[in-house]
Amino acid sequence: MCRWQAYSGRPIRLEALLFDAKHSLIDQSMCSRSAETPTNGDGFGVGWYGTREFPGLFRSIRPAWNDFNLRDMAAQVESPLFLAHVRATSLATVQETNCHPFRHGNWLFVHNGEIFEIEKFRRALMIEIAPELFTSVQGTTDSEVLFFLALTFGLEKDPLGAMARMAGCVEAIARAHGVAESLWMTLGVSDGKTVYAVRYASDGQAPTLYYSKRVEDLQALGLAPEAAARLGPEARMIVSEPIGKLADAWVAVPQASALRLSAGKVEVTPFRPVAPGAKRPQPVA
Amino acid sequence: MCRWQAYSGRPIRLEALLFDAKHSLIDQSMCSRSAETPTNGDGFGVGWYGTREFPGLFRSIRPAWNDFNLRDMAAQVESPLFLAHVRATSLATVQETNCHPFRHGNWLFVHNGEIFEIEKFRRALMIEIAPELFTSVQGTTDSEVLFFLALTFGLEKDPLGAMARMAGCVEAIARAHGVAESLWMTLGVSDGKTVYAVRYASDGQAPTLYYSKRVEDLQALGLAPEAAARLGPEARMIVSEPIGKLADAWVAVPQASALRLSAGKVEVTPFRPVAPGAKRPQPVA
Amino acid sequence: MCRWQAYSGRPIRLEALLFDAKHSLIDQSMCSRSAETPTNGDGFGVGWYGTREFPGLFRSIRPAWNDFNLRDMAAQVESPLFLAHVRATSLATVQETNCHPFRHGNWLFVHNGEIFEIEKFRRALMIEIAPELFTSVQGTTDSEVLFFLALTFGLEKDPLGAMARMAGCVEAIARAHGVAESLWMTLGVSDGKTVYAVRYASDGQAPTLYYSKRVEDLQALGLAPEAAARLGPEARMIVSEPIGKLADAWVAVPQASALRLSAGKVEVTPFRPVAPGAKRPQPVA
Amino acid sequence: MCRWQAYSGRPIRLEALLFDAKHSLIDQSMCSRSAETPTNGDGFGVGWYGTREFPGLFRSIRPAWNDFNLRDMAAQVESPLFLAHVRATSLATVQETNCHPFRHGNWLFVHNGEIFEIEKFRRALMIEIAPELFTSVQGTTDSEVLFFLALTFGLEKDPLGAMARMAGCVEAIARAHGVAESLWMTLGVSDGKTVYAVRYASDGQAPTLYYSKRVEDLQALGLAPEAAARLGPEARMIVSEPIGKLADAWVAVPQASALRLSAGKVEVTPFRPVAPGAKRPQPVA
Repeated sequence: MCRWQAYSGRPIRLEALLFDAKHSLIDQSMCSRSAETPTNGDGFGVGWYGTREFPGLFRSIRPAWNDFNLRDMAAQVESPLFLAHVRATSLATVQETNCHPFRHGNWLFVHNGEIFEIEKFRRALMIEIAPELFTSVQGTTDSEVLFFLALTFGLEKDPLGAMARMAGCVEAIARAHGVAESLWMTLGVSDGKTVYAVRYASDGQAPTLYYSKRVEDLQALGLAPEAAARLGPEARMIVSEPIGKLADAWVAVPQASALRLSAGKVEVTPFRPVAPGAKRPQPVA
Repeated sequence: MCRWQAYSGRPIRLEALLFDAKHSLIDQSMCSRSAETPTNGDGFGVGWYGTREFPGLFRSIRPAWNDFNLRDMAAQVESPLFLAHVRATSLATVQETNCHPFRHGNWLFVHNGEIFEIEKFRRALMIEIAPELFTSVQGTTDSEVLFFLALTFGLEKDPLGAMARMAGCVEAIARAHGVAESLWMTLGVSDGKTVYAVRYASDGQAPTLYYSKRVEDLQALGLAPEAAARLGPEARMIVSEPIGKLADAWVAVPQASALRLSAGKVEVTPFRPVAPGAKRPQPVA
Repeated sequence: MCRWQAYSGRPIRLEALLFDAKHSLIDQSMCSRSAETPTNGDGFGVGWYGTREFPGLFRSIRPAWNDFNLRDMAAQVESPLFLAHVRATSLATVQETNCHPFRHGNWLFVHNGEIFEIEKFRRALMIEIAPELFTSVQGTTDSEVLFFLALTFGLEKDPLGAMARMAGCVEAIARAHGVAESLWMTLGVSDGKTVYAVRYASDGQAPTLYYSKRVEDLQALGLAPEAAARLGPEARMIVSEPIGKLADAWVAVPQASALRLSAGKVEVTPFRPVAPGAKRPQPVA
Repeated sequence: MCRWQAYSGRPIRLEALLFDAKHSLIDQSMCSRSAETPTNGDGFGVGWYGTREFPGLFRSIRPAWNDFNLRDMAAQVESPLFLAHVRATSLATVQETNCHPFRHGNWLFVHNGEIFEIEKFRRALMIEIAPELFTSVQGTTDSEVLFFLALTFGLEKDPLGAMARMAGCVEAIARAHGVAESLWMTLGVSDGKTVYAVRYASDGQAPTLYYSKRVEDLQALGLAPEAAARLGPEARMIVSEPIGKLADAWVAVPQASALRLSAGKVEVTPFRPVAPGAKRPQPVA
């Protein structure tokens, strides 16, 4: 099980939320309270939007807690929107190209979860990826396949629709290969303006997903006063597990939901996979 | 352009040929005399046959010349047959799964060269890989695709035939995508008993390939006396570039040739790609 | 808190004890049951005696559980005596030269523990290191300083005596800098024939140390039958924490003890630091 | 032989000079025209001044040319003053703490060169480092020792004076250990406002050092028009070897010189080591 978080609001230094916040993502990576995955030491990544048309990406196979470059980068870089991820795997190799976020153009993508028994139908999924996107796949994770399927199904024009079609496609192909309940996931996706998130599992038991509803909830995370003061009223986070100790500061997103975060406004809607048959859009160019 | 070498003979310590030999592969990795590729610093790998049914593999993204683990491993490990590779790339990511040798079962595979404009038809090549082998592809190099195509076409039963069919398949698919002259390569392949090598390019201008013809040629490489003494009469090497200074110690393999080395005996035969149409064997299980 | 283990007996493949044994060192590295140090993901190392006059060393900054080279090396290499270590640090940088074992000539050294407040007197300890050994210090751990002090005080001629003088020296210098209880440690040391271990803390609360007393205790760790059968009657392990589930298979070494393991025979004697004043031997050349 | 460069001027993206400039430092790292050191593949580092009181630091053991994180970081980060370094070593271990720049407080330090036969007197040099700085030494290079000696001799208050005293101290200690001509170096040092550089060798044969004298010389390096336009009239570089092809754009700094660059103004003065005897300042706190 991986962990991830997304931030949207006024520009802040990455370190405020990655390192300074109490029980932060980096702390969690070393010592979780989860029985199943005690450690997220199999690499990490941060993608952030800065002053370029495309986001920056820093990914490493080291555990996040002992990487000095991450610490330095997080101390210097400011961003109004970033996604961070710490990885735990027993399957795909630990290599930078398997670390999240994945990036394509100005899009970033993080994933917690699994495609069950993907080894039975990975090839079939890969063939569904639009040919013009095929050579952009750089690693061997199920997560990256999800991303490129979503791109294939129109992520850049209709993010939540494309993710619904992606989920429907995966479930259909999995069923065709004898896997009844294939998807178990939370997703975080962004184009630099809006953050989209999805909580969904084929069996209705997806991993957790939360968001913060007021800037005060983030300010209470133990940030340095200067950092806390810089957070504007629209500052929000989406997290796979609550950070900090104030559990009631976080709103749990229900099973089978999609979330849209923009300018401090969070919108939660039902998420239902769309099976391949109906109204499939043309692959994006 | 990468570099590689293979050794077959009595068990020797890897360091004798990787480090102690004059102008060895490791030396070459830092400072070649080739104008095009001055450095092979994009990772390395060694695969060796020891006391197990499968070969050992040590691959790293560090330059071979500054990796202390490689030095130590090479000082301790003895093997009667090993392949080593130093990499230079401007294309595929530098990550362990892109380092040679590639391994499948008891087979090892190294490659120097390129599939030209593979980005136009990588997907088509991947689809040719036998479905039961598809999920074993771990990296993103053209080299590994060649290996898995060769496995698909029967490498384990008919090594040289499978490589001919692999080459024919690549050329046919490339031509179908508008690339007239796609292959440029030397290959080294082994099952732990025999070493097979191929020198071939679609345009007849393949990179170099050499072999040694007498144990004395290896003994003259500046090995420690103890190491030189341990080499039996059947000790041979196959190399992408001559090592040492005695250029005439090495026999150049002609263009479009296959080579078979076993028990000190080298057999060179013509190599001709076999187009997909005729007599294609069933994919191996 | 780090973890380590030592094996002495007939040559076995490293993987038998590092990977195959139930609740092995590698398993422990990812998920310990200790509250203080849930993870030992800050690098690892293995030192083994093979066919050379000096031991082999493989150290890496990656977590041991996700390093494929370690897995391969452990699958191929056999040794009658090896030491392995997984590291957890919040102090010294994670880099290969800070990974244990440390090696000097044919000696290997692993450490679990800490020199408290060493930042106050690290320079004074370094000055005690024999000048001819000074440039061999390669990292920045307190552990390596202990090793070079022990070498300075005659480790190669009188191992347990040298470690007693080393401990006395550290405690004296620490006290002179205002640190009353400075040492907290278990040590494992070997020359390839004998394994020496020490459990000692200035305050009498050293971390744990255990040894196995019968080959059957190791055979019961869930090894493959072939591996279990290869263990001779003299096979023994020394471990910082019990591996496997049979807690009573392991004999706890009392506080302030030294241990000597050779040819299956374990000898436990009291360990008392020797203050610098009395009978200090000449530094070794 | 290492290579380094420093930039001072209006904030620009690091990539403009590190990657986009023709025959840039990164290009040079892979393929130099120098016979002695064909490759600078033993790690790299960049230190830059941003919006914090201390500079950011990104160092890695990978060759600069194949590190994707460097490329991304350089694409996003802007700075008015940065130092970059690519390393070639046959001595000290390749590890992050041995990569330049070294940092202490708001100071950065890069070095090309060598202390000859330092193994004979490294301990004596270390003892000269101010005790309160001793534990801040993290690596094992001669370069870092030079930096901490300069800090000991007052770098923060009197940069060029401290470097003269540092050079005098090294030469005196070397001579006392039988090494007549010990120093061979160019240095680059900054506090974020001014860049200091030194070219000096005990035998008068120091490696090269250059600076640019007009913004047009940098604009002619093949930068993207947008980047070239952002360079203000005060943009200057100091380099260990000229970048680009316009050799006459670079002013060679004479042997035994110190250089001071601030707000586009370059001042070159003679550099003479100051022997330890005379007027040694108190070590800085």
